[in-house]
Amino acid sequence: MITELLVAEIKRKKSFLCIGLDVDLNKIPQHLLKEEDPIFAFNKAIIDATHHLAVSYKPNTAFYEAYGIKGWQSLEKTINYINKKYPKIFTIADAKRGDIGNTSTMYAKAFFEDLAFDSVTVAPYMGKDSIEPFLAFEDKHTIMLALTSNQGAFDFQTKKIDNQEVYKHVLETSKSWENSKNLMYVVGATKAEYFTEIRKIVPDSFLLVPGVGAQGGSLSEVCKYGLSNQVGLLINSSRGIIYAGKGIDFAEKATAAASILQQEMASFLR
Amino acid sequence: MITELLVAEIKRKKSFLCIGLDVDLNKIPQHLLKEEDPIFAFNKAIIDATHHLAVSYKPNTAFYEAYGIKGWQSLEKTINYINKKYPKIFTIADAKRGDIGNTSTMYAKAFFEDLAFDSVTVAPYMGKDSIEPFLAFEDKHTIMLALTSNQGAFDFQTKKIDNQEVYKHVLETSKSWENSKNLMYVVGATKAEYFTEIRKIVPDSFLLVPGVGAQGGSLSEVCKYGLSNQVGLLINSSRGIIYAGKGIDFAEKATAAASILQQEMASFLR
Repeated sequence: MITELLVAEIKRKKSFLCIGLDVDLNKIPQHLLKEEDPIFAFNKAIIDATHHLAVSYKPNTAFYEAYGIKGWQSLEKTINYINKKYPKIFTIADAKRGDIGNTSTMYAKAFFEDLAFDSVTVAPYMGKDSIEPFLAFEDKHTIMLALTSNQGAFDFQTKKIDNQEVYKHVLETSKSWENSKNLMYVVGATKAEYFTEIRKIVPDSFLLVPGVGAQGGSLSEVCKYGLSNQVGLLINSSRGIIYAGKGIDFAEKATAAASILQQEMASFLR
Repeated sequence: MITELLVAEIKRKKSFLCIGLDVDLNKIPQHLLKEEDPIFAFNKAIIDATHHLAVSYKPNTAFYEAYGIKGWQSLEKTINYINKKYPKIFTIADAKRGDIGNTSTMYAKAFFEDLAFDSVTVAPYMGKDSIEPFLAFEDKHTIMLALTSNQGAFDFQTKKIDNQEVYKHVLETSKSWENSKNLMYVVGATKAEYFTEIRKIVPDSFLLVPGVGAQGGSLSEVCKYGLSNQVGLLINSSRGIIYAGKGIDFAEKATAAASILQQEMASFLR
């Protein structure tokens, strides 16, 4: 998907909401466990109940891999369902991959070709030649970890290289890579004050922002410092929406939770 | 698998060879393509031909994911085959995972429980709480990227934080994590001169060393600077062994290629 279509959809829906499909069989409504594929049944219901309020879905691959082949099948059914029924939705494989060149190409094929996601998240530790193979895919996006929303972000990401924090060094360096126009970045919402600094380095790039809701980040703070001329934000919420209800009415509860976020987002898009 | 068993196997086989099962359908002998599962057929032949010369196998998950569900099935069959037929082999899922806490637990379950690997490779960028969930699994090992063998290693890993290279900072920091005894590290062979410095920080830890062979690293250099009191090295070779032959006799060619490395390793274990 080209970025212009994503921006158009954001403006049409007045929403830059991304819904994380991190499906744990211990947390979904128990009546779904009798379905042939409970994970897909859950995802389908959530997607049908929220597609008008969200512009993006982000399955985290860990939650599918944990169930082995069955989990991978649920992931495949989920992405196929979205691509067929809601083709203007921007899909993200939250996989945090990264390896030496030819191996990264295999990962890129797995997510961009075999599963036909619009984007995949990657980790920057191995540098340029571990990311460029992803960037080579046209109209696909590579979302690189910059500043994450967990406590461990302070172990390395905020440490300084030549008086510049590692995450800024990562952002700065990545701009020189081939096809860097296909890069987006993960920036955690729990540190909204950092967005000003980040926008100095990547004024126009899309930022995928986890950490609003369950992890305590503030939507208004993120918007205040993070919005770009072309929006440039995808705010992710996972548990706060998909587990808003635990009963038969879980899908309606998800609609309601997504709607609250969408309305707040609309107020920042005026 | 406990480390003592790995060391015992290394001494018994006089080998610290790890064979990377990075299987590309375009590179395997073409007569295998008529098999029902060519990837598994290839792996099975390679394993049967080399199990007496190697102490470890390391499938890189990218090469399986690229073929979708079929690929994941080939991976499952491969690990099950090794675990059943050669239970003393140390298995590594080369997956380079890492995410926030609860998600890392799901990845750990995927590789330690669902697929029953002895170990998994992880990326350190997200810090302590992204790695400790892996370390919590008893008798399982977590192999963290420290200094990789690709050109991109110089983008971030060798940059300095407070006068200490990032990879050293990563090694040093990780020693304080809970259950850090379950950590091993990836250190590329293309930079053998760094092993002296690394051994000052982690004198006893096992190091998984890619980059011997196809990527140009020298086995004798790595052994000279990297061997610990309890060996502490697993040297990986992938393409140099598994693609040593392209015809009907590919398995025998793999035996021959592995044997050359094993014999060289034996000379360093005397």
